[in-house]
Amino acid sequence: MSDAAPLLDQLLEALRCLPGVGDKSALDAAMQRIGNCTRCRSFSEASLCALCASDRRDPQLLCVVESPADLAAVEQATGYRGLYFVLLGRLSPLDGLGPAELGLDLLQRRLAEGEVQELIVATNPTVEGEATAHYLAQLARVAGVRATRLAHGVPLGGELEYIDRGTLAHAFGGRQSLG
Amino acid sequence: MSDAAPLLDQLLEALRCLPGVGDKSALDAAMQRIGNCTRCRSFSEASLCALCASDRRDPQLLCVVESPADLAAVEQATGYRGLYFVLLGRLSPLDGLGPAELGLDLLQRRLAEGEVQELIVATNPTVEGEATAHYLAQLARVAGVRATRLAHGVPLGGELEYIDRGTLAHAFGGRQSLG
Repeated sequence: MSDAAPLLDQLLEALRCLPGVGDKSALDAAMQRIGNCTRCRSFSEASLCALCASDRRDPQLLCVVESPADLAAVEQATGYRGLYFVLLGRLSPLDGLGPAELGLDLLQRRLAEGEVQELIVATNPTVEGEATAHYLAQLARVAGVRATRLAHGVPLGGELEYIDRGTLAHAFGGRQSLG
Repeated sequence: MSDAAPLLDQLLEALRCLPGVGDKSALDAAMQRIGNCTRCRSFSEASLCALCASDRRDPQLLCVVESPADLAAVEQATGYRGLYFVLLGRLSPLDGLGPAELGLDLLQRRLAEGEVQELIVATNPTVEGEATAHYLAQLARVAGVRATRLAHGVPLGGELEYIDRGTLAHAFGGRQSLG
């Protein structure tokens, strides 16, 4: 520590001010032990995270998200019972983030295993997220796996009058039959 | 004027301050002449608004919106070339807004004419807007017209992490195949 990671030291120092956080060594251990799941790349203390290790999740569904925070959002908001794959970023050549940095070779091998039946692409609907989604769709096609994308359109509770043009045009073009 | 509508007088007075607005009688005439299109209920000076009177619009497509402002939003954002029907509100029994107030008898007769092939329901994704959409879908079914609804989901440029749970759950449930 110390000289090698002054910023980390500062973080630990700052956290010690919080109630209940008294021992630097405990934090230190947590920092050292938390790594990434070898299967889904999410944060995990063990080599397999709790989700990947669970036998209650459907291994035929694989949801690709950009970050562990997105994983948490999907997990909290939806009743999804499948597994995840965390990119820890998005394709962004200018920032030096290519397929290798996003672990897409790992994903490719996983799709080739043949267990995944549906790849749910839940990257953000930003320009880079869309480019990533496009790349993921190609990976899925090569592996013969069905790829799906979260619906885009008018958010619930929104008013057409105040929605940006792009979203409104997208929602209009993507209109669906009413039952 | 004067005593009967002091607020209107105040409005006219305020508008007279604007450059180019000098004559109260002109404003007065505009206020008196602007009414509602007899076919689509949008604001219009003539009995038929410019959109309804145009022969460049596709009469087989009918988009139902809540307000003239929503009509303007759709018109600006999308390349829609069909016609509109403006509810001037949404179903809201507590506010005394029922099918009659929204002109749904007029809409029903229009659907019965047989020209409309697709009823595009563009009410807002609020609770009342959804109830209205449900009612409109029933009207369309009775008339044998296909009803569609604007797509709901994650708005463009949005980040999953910051989207409300309802929208995220909806977007997840409504996921679509990627090409």
